[in-house]
Amino acid sequence: MAGLVPAIGVFYADASETADTGTKPDMTTENVMSTAVSPLAPANVPDMPAVSGVRLATAEAGIRYAGRTDVLLALFDPGTTAAGVFTRSKCPSAPVEWCRAHLKKSKTRVLVVNSGNANAFTGKTGRDACKFTAQIAARAAGCEPGDVFLASTGVIGEPLKAQAFDGVMGGLVARAQSSEFLAAARAIMTTDTFPKVATATAKIGKTRVTINGIAKGAGMIAPDMATMLSFMFTDAAISAPALQALLKDGVADTFNAVTIDGDTSTSDTLMMFATGKASGAPRIVRATDPRLKGFKKALHSVLASLAEQVARDGEGARKLVEIVVEGAVSKVSARRIAMSIANSPLVKTAIAGEDANWGRVVMAVGKAGEPADRDKLSIWFGGIRVAHRGARDPSYDEATVSAAMKKPEISLKVALGLGKGRDRVLTCDLTKEYVAINGDYRS
Amino acid sequence: MAGLVPAIGVFYADASETADTGTKPDMTTENVMSTAVSPLAPANVPDMPAVSGVRLATAEAGIRYAGRTDVLLALFDPGTTAAGVFTRSKCPSAPVEWCRAHLKKSKTRVLVVNSGNANAFTGKTGRDACKFTAQIAARAAGCEPGDVFLASTGVIGEPLKAQAFDGVMGGLVARAQSSEFLAAARAIMTTDTFPKVATATAKIGKTRVTINGIAKGAGMIAPDMATMLSFMFTDAAISAPALQALLKDGVADTFNAVTIDGDTSTSDTLMMFATGKASGAPRIVRATDPRLKGFKKALHSVLASLAEQVARDGEGARKLVEIVVEGAVSKVSARRIAMSIANSPLVKTAIAGEDANWGRVVMAVGKAGEPADRDKLSIWFGGIRVAHRGARDPSYDEATVSAAMKKPEISLKVALGLGKGRDRVLTCDLTKEYVAINGDYRS
Repeated sequence: MAGLVPAIGVFYADASETADTGTKPDMTTENVMSTAVSPLAPANVPDMPAVSGVRLATAEAGIRYAGRTDVLLALFDPGTTAAGVFTRSKCPSAPVEWCRAHLKKSKTRVLVVNSGNANAFTGKTGRDACKFTAQIAARAAGCEPGDVFLASTGVIGEPLKAQAFDGVMGGLVARAQSSEFLAAARAIMTTDTFPKVATATAKIGKTRVTINGIAKGAGMIAPDMATMLSFMFTDAAISAPALQALLKDGVADTFNAVTIDGDTSTSDTLMMFATGKASGAPRIVRATDPRLKGFKKALHSVLASLAEQVARDGEGARKLVEIVVEGAVSKVSARRIAMSIANSPLVKTAIAGEDANWGRVVMAVGKAGEPADRDKLSIWFGGIRVAHRGARDPSYDEATVSAAMKKPEISLKVALGLGKGRDRVLTCDLTKEYVAINGDYRS
Repeated sequence: MAGLVPAIGVFYADASETADTGTKPDMTTENVMSTAVSPLAPANVPDMPAVSGVRLATAEAGIRYAGRTDVLLALFDPGTTAAGVFTRSKCPSAPVEWCRAHLKKSKTRVLVVNSGNANAFTGKTGRDACKFTAQIAARAAGCEPGDVFLASTGVIGEPLKAQAFDGVMGGLVARAQSSEFLAAARAIMTTDTFPKVATATAKIGKTRVTINGIAKGAGMIAPDMATMLSFMFTDAAISAPALQALLKDGVADTFNAVTIDGDTSTSDTLMMFATGKASGAPRIVRATDPRLKGFKKALHSVLASLAEQVARDGEGARKLVEIVVEGAVSKVSARRIAMSIANSPLVKTAIAGEDANWGRVVMAVGKAGEPADRDKLSIWFGGIRVAHRGARDPSYDEATVSAAMKKPEISLKVALGLGKGRDRVLTCDLTKEYVAINGDYRS
């Protein structure tokens, strides 16, 4: 497991520019839907500092849930730039289409997110709900509907009753304040068992800027969809094109390197907002600006922390699994092989059974369709080599490997021996609880 | 469900040239590993006729199992041609490599299949085991080692103790007879809950020929791999190149249109043997010969029946699921979308929960990466339209749909409204039993 600790723990340990001290959030509040918190939940939650130019408020609009918040409003000072990456689904939700269309404008004043209803597969009604929500938010905030971004998560196919927002919008604007990031993370949860937040700081020139992020993970509540929503907030001054490039680059090895079950939501949304309100912050126009070096590192640490928290809160997950593939012909090839392993039901059930079943790993390597040579293949579980050059490792010791498989964090490494391509993805095990969460609610 | 019966039942009902009457096999014999037979097992098993030029025998070699047969020997009369299609895995088993290499010779006299050990990921030892097995089989049968084809299924990574075959090979050759197809199907089972056989006849010219098939399905026994093996036997006289073309064509919409969990074995093997011993059978040289019309149909019915039986015996399966996609831009596109739905854990768990969760079907369509227009999409469960043109069907009735979802056979249809591409695949649901079978054996 020695190899795993620095790798998986990096997002907290490596935050050299962050000050992420904090306490475990209160999981007993009624805001948290699930009563049982994932055993893989992080031990510490950072105190989330204010981000100048961002104010937040949450409310109970009663979209679907009772006794918990389900709507988040974020207000941005004038001049805030926006960037976003969205689901690759060919059947995206209405809010995803709304955001894509309005990103062209690149400036924003308001973000409205609701849980309980995804406003997906809702036809014209869904588009109307987006328009209506943007209108009432714009009216309350004193801006144009085109300045409003939207995201929804929850039931799909049910019309979103956007009128419910009408009753709470004025109050949200009035109450918005700078210190509500953990509450914001709670308001967007569906079957998440803990709210997901991360923060880091970096210097741009002589100015220290903050990056705060919140996320909700791949959770499901009948008949919801597994949707990943994440929002990043910074007081740096970065042009919209540069922000878009930073976000696109940052997501490649973080959110795009996490898989729970290989299924892709119609609603996956990751947006970033830069207010430019950090005092004295230089205005950055290009993503290649060398002054962004520390910022890029800090952004990566926040995105990576949130992505890891999503994996830690995979439905029914009892093991956090890191898959490292090295010696592939390229990084792209290594990613494909790692994803083939990470999405294999046979590998995931073996890990749930605490079985170092490297035969199934060979299978998953073989089916990836990427260059691989069986007789050069080596496989490690928890840092212990179990297979070497196409056969069981001669020094294989069942007891040692079994002990490693009992840990809550499992690192699985494959060396292909073909080239220098390396990649890493995170996933979780496939348990009976996953099937229960996703299949039992009708019975 | 009206739409489903002719579709899923076609393999038995449509066998116009077959005479598949029979009785349920005795599932209480100790030859059957699992005690609980799949509730989806076919009600009737055909009497398997002799195939002239083919003799079979089974034995207990004690490779892994106690008290059951685990080795099958098939003897073919001189002049028998062979064809084969194999796993696409980049890490194939030693027997798969052996068969690929020896198919060039195109003639064969012997097939040896064992269960209990897959001889996969066994390095040089594995190649030596193949060579040794072929040598002793050839010696016993009076032919060359190159006339012997091999297949293995079971544990991977463990050396196959091929010496075990030495003690039984002579007896197998001595006992081989023409009526052992059901026993042959039993000997190759791993976690299959029932033996899989199918038969059909067809006329080539004025001669009636027989096609018999046996298969083992995607089953797993710790730490085995899900491997599909299938062998087809006919007394038609067909050249090896023509036989290869027929088999390749036949597999596309049968075995290649079945998925249990999207995982691909290192050992998947489908072979066909044509003895040419049907009295008066004309020798067919080309697969395009018009005299093959009835034969192609009969071959399809046998392959389709076996493929369906594999789906019916998917690990932990409680529902047989037919996915039909129509209105795609092409058949290839329809296949990809159907496979995306069939392999989605969220769709499969929903079906296990008897939930007509069309939202997850939209998700699986969207993630397939193929052309799709959300606002043209319609979805049916059990013949009942639940979603139409990008939204819930106005006439959706929960009670009617719920009743349909309780049946053991579920047809799921998606109409894309884009073109004329249509395809169909078979799968099963994803249950807690699947996780238990594949994950619990260590706990």
